[in-house]
Amino acid sequence: MDTGAPIGDRADVGRAVVLLSGGLDSSTVLAMARWEGWICYALTVLYGQTHAVEAAAARRVAGAFGVAEHRVTEIDLRGWGGSSLVGDGEIPRGRSEGEFSRSIPSTYVPARNTVLLSLALAWAEALDAGAVFLGINALDSSGYPDCRPDFLKAFEETARLGTRRGAEGRPISFRAPLLNKTKAEIIRWGAALGVDYAMTVSCYTSSGGPPCGACDSCRLRAKGFAEAGIPDPLLA
Amino acid sequence: MDTGAPIGDRADVGRAVVLLSGGLDSSTVLAMARWEGWICYALTVLYGQTHAVEAAAARRVAGAFGVAEHRVTEIDLRGWGGSSLVGDGEIPRGRSEGEFSRSIPSTYVPARNTVLLSLALAWAEALDAGAVFLGINALDSSGYPDCRPDFLKAFEETARLGTRRGAEGRPISFRAPLLNKTKAEIIRWGAALGVDYAMTVSCYTSSGGPPCGACDSCRLRAKGFAEAGIPDPLLA
Repeated sequence: MDTGAPIGDRADVGRAVVLLSGGLDSSTVLAMARWEGWICYALTVLYGQTHAVEAAAARRVAGAFGVAEHRVTEIDLRGWGGSSLVGDGEIPRGRSEGEFSRSIPSTYVPARNTVLLSLALAWAEALDAGAVFLGINALDSSGYPDCRPDFLKAFEETARLGTRRGAEGRPISFRAPLLNKTKAEIIRWGAALGVDYAMTVSCYTSSGGPPCGACDSCRLRAKGFAEAGIPDPLLA
Repeated sequence: MDTGAPIGDRADVGRAVVLLSGGLDSSTVLAMARWEGWICYALTVLYGQTHAVEAAAARRVAGAFGVAEHRVTEIDLRGWGGSSLVGDGEIPRGRSEGEFSRSIPSTYVPARNTVLLSLALAWAEALDAGAVFLGINALDSSGYPDCRPDFLKAFEETARLGTRRGAEGRPISFRAPLLNKTKAEIIRWGAALGVDYAMTVSCYTSSGGPPCGACDSCRLRAKGFAEAGIPDPLLA
């Protein structure tokens, strides 16, 4: 696991799969991977989320950063239940920062990142890619258990043991360069790499119109831009 | 991880997700889970395999063992490439046992079991199920890296760290009761539990007709029935 090695100094670049939701974090990660020179294969997984408008954002971002291929895969977790993000119950609004960093919120989708990572892993192995990039973040993770470093480390070990590349001693590395960054740091970093955040979507309730400004994701984004001292181009 | 605790003596039964391909192994596992008293939710994942006839077999077996629900989910790994089992290249036939236990064969589907387990995990968490049962087998596994005990143990740890149940100290257990059994042991065990193996399909190339008798899976099945001293009802 690599939680933010200095960029621009890696000799082992090649193909990489980048999980791209079209949100702020994953778009920044794609920019970083491209900046390092990786040949990027962007994977957007539609899991029946109520904010499917992110897929269109993902297409814009993938195009802007010249990925080798952008694959949009559907896997309907809606019928599986258990999360407000896939239609079960109300998406919480207006919670304080303390509230959303302590408990697992209703927007947690059961095993979501395990599913996303396993799909990225399958594609990475088929492509003989050396890395999977993802935009998970432990600081602003709203208490999601599958956004934590020890989870990612365990998944990486599972991938090493369960794949042909791992058996051959060339395990796929899982890179989460934003894992320990604040939203403000992510935004500053992405802005320096030329990410146009007007292309990205963060709002949990967005249907293409203006962001709600009240859900956890909108509030984290607003706080991040404020702390970075950069205006959010989405609100310009 | 539980690799074959004595059955019939567990007090902690409740809901369980059973990965059911419709093949010999997973059908036996479903019979064992039912025998122990678990309320079973069978999950069949169609991943674009050329032997989709297994789905019909899975329906028959799920019906025979009175599952609470049988879900058939599609996730097309065909376009992802890298395996003869999803249409890339020739399925090997007539290999010796030494050959198919030493190397990773072309029928290996990149990260297949990681994908299947993550989907089972997602459903298990949504159901608040305590266990996921699966029919992987290390002895007859044809060299698949994702059929080994250390792989399953690593996945179980990933699941513990990445789920709400794990965070609450009630991790989901992953039970692979056939992990260290020979095909003959599996068949004897299943026969004792009333599995009608005429319902199951093993052949990698089957399209509903008689099994080819030459692929790795047919050869393992034939050897198993021969060693168990039981005639294969599929060939009767």
